[in-house]
Amino acid sequence: MRILVINPNTTEEMTQDIGRQARKFARPGTEIEAVSPVWGPRSIEGHYEDQLSAVATLEVIQERGADFDGVVIACYGDPGLHAAREISPAPVVGIAEASMLMACTVAHTFSIVTVLPRIKPMFETMVRMHGLESRCASIRTTPLSVLDCERDPAAARREIVKASRLAIEEDGAEAICLGCAGMGPLDKEVEAELGIPVLDGVVCGVKLIESLVDYGLSTSRVAAYKAPEPKEILNYSPAGAALPA
Amino acid sequence: MRILVINPNTTEEMTQDIGRQARKFARPGTEIEAVSPVWGPRSIEGHYEDQLSAVATLEVIQERGADFDGVVIACYGDPGLHAAREISPAPVVGIAEASMLMACTVAHTFSIVTVLPRIKPMFETMVRMHGLESRCASIRTTPLSVLDCERDPAAARREIVKASRLAIEEDGAEAICLGCAGMGPLDKEVEAELGIPVLDGVVCGVKLIESLVDYGLSTSRVAAYKAPEPKEILNYSPAGAALPA
Amino acid sequence: MRILVINPNTTEEMTQDIGRQARKFARPGTEIEAVSPVWGPRSIEGHYEDQLSAVATLEVIQERGADFDGVVIACYGDPGLHAAREISPAPVVGIAEASMLMACTVAHTFSIVTVLPRIKPMFETMVRMHGLESRCASIRTTPLSVLDCERDPAAARREIVKASRLAIEEDGAEAICLGCAGMGPLDKEVEAELGIPVLDGVVCGVKLIESLVDYGLSTSRVAAYKAPEPKEILNYSPAGAALPA
Amino acid sequence: MRILVINPNTTEEMTQDIGRQARKFARPGTEIEAVSPVWGPRSIEGHYEDQLSAVATLEVIQERGADFDGVVIACYGDPGLHAAREISPAPVVGIAEASMLMACTVAHTFSIVTVLPRIKPMFETMVRMHGLESRCASIRTTPLSVLDCERDPAAARREIVKASRLAIEEDGAEAICLGCAGMGPLDKEVEAELGIPVLDGVVCGVKLIESLVDYGLSTSRVAAYKAPEPKEILNYSPAGAALPA
Amino acid sequence: MRILVINPNTTEEMTQDIGRQARKFARPGTEIEAVSPVWGPRSIEGHYEDQLSAVATLEVIQERGADFDGVVIACYGDPGLHAAREISPAPVVGIAEASMLMACTVAHTFSIVTVLPRIKPMFETMVRMHGLESRCASIRTTPLSVLDCERDPAAARREIVKASRLAIEEDGAEAICLGCAGMGPLDKEVEAELGIPVLDGVVCGVKLIESLVDYGLSTSRVAAYKAPEPKEILNYSPAGAALPA
Amino acid sequence: MRILVINPNTTEEMTQDIGRQARKFARPGTEIEAVSPVWGPRSIEGHYEDQLSAVATLEVIQERGADFDGVVIACYGDPGLHAAREISPAPVVGIAEASMLMACTVAHTFSIVTVLPRIKPMFETMVRMHGLESRCASIRTTPLSVLDCERDPAAARREIVKASRLAIEEDGAEAICLGCAGMGPLDKEVEAELGIPVLDGVVCGVKLIESLVDYGLSTSRVAAYKAPEPKEILNYSPAGAALPA
Repeated sequence: MRILVINPNTTEEMTQDIGRQARKFARPGTEIEAVSPVWGPRSIEGHYEDQLSAVATLEVIQERGADFDGVVIACYGDPGLHAAREISPAPVVGIAEASMLMACTVAHTFSIVTVLPRIKPMFETMVRMHGLESRCASIRTTPLSVLDCERDPAAARREIVKASRLAIEEDGAEAICLGCAGMGPLDKEVEAELGIPVLDGVVCGVKLIESLVDYGLSTSRVAAYKAPEPKEILNYSPAGAALPA
Repeated sequence: MRILVINPNTTEEMTQDIGRQARKFARPGTEIEAVSPVWGPRSIEGHYEDQLSAVATLEVIQERGADFDGVVIACYGDPGLHAAREISPAPVVGIAEASMLMACTVAHTFSIVTVLPRIKPMFETMVRMHGLESRCASIRTTPLSVLDCERDPAAARREIVKASRLAIEEDGAEAICLGCAGMGPLDKEVEAELGIPVLDGVVCGVKLIESLVDYGLSTSRVAAYKAPEPKEILNYSPAGAALPA
Repeated sequence: MRILVINPNTTEEMTQDIGRQARKFARPGTEIEAVSPVWGPRSIEGHYEDQLSAVATLEVIQERGADFDGVVIACYGDPGLHAAREISPAPVVGIAEASMLMACTVAHTFSIVTVLPRIKPMFETMVRMHGLESRCASIRTTPLSVLDCERDPAAARREIVKASRLAIEEDGAEAICLGCAGMGPLDKEVEAELGIPVLDGVVCGVKLIESLVDYGLSTSRVAAYKAPEPKEILNYSPAGAALPA
Repeated sequence: MRILVINPNTTEEMTQDIGRQARKFARPGTEIEAVSPVWGPRSIEGHYEDQLSAVATLEVIQERGADFDGVVIACYGDPGLHAAREISPAPVVGIAEASMLMACTVAHTFSIVTVLPRIKPMFETMVRMHGLESRCASIRTTPLSVLDCERDPAAARREIVKASRLAIEEDGAEAICLGCAGMGPLDKEVEAELGIPVLDGVVCGVKLIESLVDYGLSTSRVAAYKAPEPKEILNYSPAGAALPA
Repeated sequence: MRILVINPNTTEEMTQDIGRQARKFARPGTEIEAVSPVWGPRSIEGHYEDQLSAVATLEVIQERGADFDGVVIACYGDPGLHAAREISPAPVVGIAEASMLMACTVAHTFSIVTVLPRIKPMFETMVRMHGLESRCASIRTTPLSVLDCERDPAAARREIVKASRLAIEEDGAEAICLGCAGMGPLDKEVEAELGIPVLDGVVCGVKLIESLVDYGLSTSRVAAYKAPEPKEILNYSPAGAALPA
Repeated sequence: MRILVINPNTTEEMTQDIGRQARKFARPGTEIEAVSPVWGPRSIEGHYEDQLSAVATLEVIQERGADFDGVVIACYGDPGLHAAREISPAPVVGIAEASMLMACTVAHTFSIVTVLPRIKPMFETMVRMHGLESRCASIRTTPLSVLDCERDPAAARREIVKASRLAIEEDGAEAICLGCAGMGPLDKEVEAELGIPVLDGVVCGVKLIESLVDYGLSTSRVAAYKAPEPKEILNYSPAGAALPA
């Protein structure tokens, strides 16, 4: 089974880390390819960057998606998720969705622990879009930027543990979803400190794709994820094609 | 006062119609400029096209937004709305949002009457995102594509009236929001047939921008709509700049 | 255009202030008449006073409403709003509704900052009635009575700023709706201190009526706001007629 | 124990019927006094009439409430309920509230079967206000006016049964709340035809007041139902005092 | 009238207390029989114990239920409530349900004050199951186990008052539902200290059963509470029959 | 990896079918043991049977659970799920939960197609308990009993397809969750007829357990699923121990 894990931002170190983390928990026989788009923001910390990277991610899927059994979108805003399902022949899961759904099987409620405060409203909307608001105890932010998680994992871990403890004590969280792909590799360390389930959406996404493929399930085409109507897209050529290799 | 009305698709006839409709109800002294992006889908009927046109719309705002007192995004999926607020110095409203908010002042509930059935789930999510689900009686679709509304307005009117009557009789709708910018110019004709308020989001968007500007309100920068963090956007140059004029 | 702004309480100074505030942001050509009922409570700080002033407000509309293009009910409980729509030929908006709807266009969420703690449950119900609970971050009360706002605006401003800061820091508010017509004239001063949008419902109500009139929208008569059935109202004569002029 | 049952409209025959119905299921030792206000609409079928009759009802409570152990407001819009709690020394229940709460103990869901279609939006808001929307399967209207129920009970019963059957078959109703005090006396006949619980709010209101009194519970004064602040009510004298006896 | 009050746990002292409390507020003519199952946990503080005691409670109803006019399940998780309605010829109410429904008639919102923190998620689900989440201000826990309430009522009262004060001040509670049958006998003492309504579900359950019986209401058999389909239950004999008397 | 799949009813043929179905989609290396309790109802079609079979299921887990890496409860009411998590050392998933969570990754909304109409209210509550009501388009029932699915699969398939088509056309379903373990083996046949994803919870449960085990996640012990407090359970011995082997 081949799974395409797309890091929607363009920070290559982070893409490598995400790939390593995905492979760590993939089962034998699952092949992981972790890629970034050839263009787009270095990190995604708001709606504008989410919009750009969504299109960049869709271009990756159009170019590479046909070669894979499933796709994981590895940014906690699930950028482009619904559109990706329209154009991808194989199933697509976002890491926010994946971590929240899987958290529901081991915990009454989860909290999302994530980066800068500015992301909180965007994630609130995202949780509502997935319909999981009654299972989400809270969204807790930290002073960390996305790339801080890459640069100083030890400091990141401290901030994550601190915010998680507040979520457990004040909000009733019974599991923690790591709200940034860059935090994923810290999952087991944070879990060891907290003593409750800690979920990295990248791993959860890989496991859900493996499950869907095993069961032979593919994206519903009734309405929400029907393939786009055939039509002209004026003056558009995906950046991947336009850039020098 | 100068208002930029962006038709996120690239069908120029529709952009002209939208401009005419906006001007028809703008007050004296309000100057309307209706534009389309230089690239993107001819019409928007799903998530994929919504994502592309959102970026195209954002590029228009980046290029032109500073010259206006407010921006209206004239596609009923409100593509790129939250991101637009991050990057636009002036207030931004989407036409779905605008028509629904204004409908709340003349009706207990509204229904959205729109194009092809495939759009319904996307609009359900959009209504939830705006938090207006308890005021939305239903989303009624028609067999019309977006461009059918342009091509054969008489037929479009018949379909809209038919779907609206079902919304009134079966769903408890007390007003109708026209769920496509291309339907907007039919507002008063449809209203005359139905005898209940019919709202075109383009007009509502213009009126709300006029109101915000009069009152001196601008977009909150606390968190959701804070300007993007300064960072590199790799290999990205807005298409508007890249294309020959 | 002529707009009738009704202060449902009988404190004349407050009616004058409301009128001034309405005129300040009305556009040229909009004529504002600010009135109070001839009877009713000096201020409205609970359900009982809300009920009395609702009827007093309805009597004003019956007596004067036909001469205006729209009506604003200038008390943050929106007293008599639905009934007013049944009997008024012209559109009617309440100031709570108006400020909340307009806040939705500049902010992800708003908080209502208002008077005494006793009002909070009544406003919670009011927010639910308008269906805006997912956009309302919190309702914050102060030690201020309604008339305190009139008597000592400087002290009122301090209390409003204090409560607003808590709403921003602890509840995630991105805009502030001033939850009492008497607080309205402080809008721009409070906004300057907080640095986020601050909305007075009186102004928002005027702008929404201007918008509705421009667009030619009137109240839906399908069901919720159908004119009352013709019937005897035993022993009832509006107080306005009964009192000496 | 003495219970004041107020019919908020001024149709004396209906008040008599309500009194009879209340006495039929009151326990021995409970004394029922059924009264109407001295002024107000002959029946209540919309928001305007609801507002007038709320004040008329509050005047009855002010004049007579002190002599009773509890008060039942016998109109299915629960007019003036929250205000009544502020001014009544004894507990107050509305018949909508009472029938819905009691229905919850014998049925998974209930439907409200009521009068004219125009009342439906008002009752939807009322159900939301009480927070019982997830237990309410539907609100089904009939062509009956309030006074039709008085004038032709046999026809009323046929319409109620017809609407109830639709509620059971199409909406999943497991009990029927009769949505008009005038329908109350038909409860057991309708129940016999349908074979599921049918609840008259007048009876339920009496039983709940009996229960509250037995248990020594009185209205909470924390905030929502705190007594009104002492203040002048300009030019107001309750109509009951003004009218010749 | 005969009411069977079942304490689902097997602590006989607690059963006695529950019986005393039920009799204290039952009206003359109501006969209370308080019983425990012959098997099951000494107290109920989680899902596992809830499941065991539910079956034990159902066995009591099968053995004794036919001799009573109504049944009260006296544990705040309402164990076995829906199943009890399927098999009981007479109406059944749970004490959580009873106290919450009755609280709605005297307070805008209630908080549940209960035992150990571990019970909170279970009660959150229970409140949602009854559809009363918008009326429930909070669930406040204490360090008390169920049996602590029996063993040291004075200490229990102190903890209950402390948690209730937090609920009133921080959560907006306007009434307190005692979230454990063992806390019931402290109702009036706690009420005296707090000055707001305090409800013991055992009393509320008895009053609701009295009300249902007076009004001749019985459990709906449409679907949710239809009697079980006739079928073999393999190797099952209720423990009550198997144990020596 | 060893997974214990418990069929909570005592129909051995059904247990065999469930085991076959689980093995069909389990990955190589996953060992499935499908068992039934030694006592309990032949099928589960209501709350009473749900309660009995929950305890029977818990007894299986107590006796056998320690030997497995995870447990699937294979009845669509998820009987005893929360209690099972308290007592099982390994993760536990219910098949309703599993199929709904997995459906969320391939469809905007799902409908549950299940057995007799009487089960619908119980499943509505179950969906709410899992917090997935906004993703559930509808619950559609059939005239099938649980054992009908075993006895006449061809007829069962016809009924399932018929109900599913209504769910797709009238309710907006984009995937179908088979609402009975006995329907599971029909998944791919029904999927072929409908052309949209069809999910058997047994398979989904196995895939989720495989995923949890791979990722090293175990049940949170913060509160909801904390192990039971140590205490006496009077007169209780699990039936499994008591019965002759």
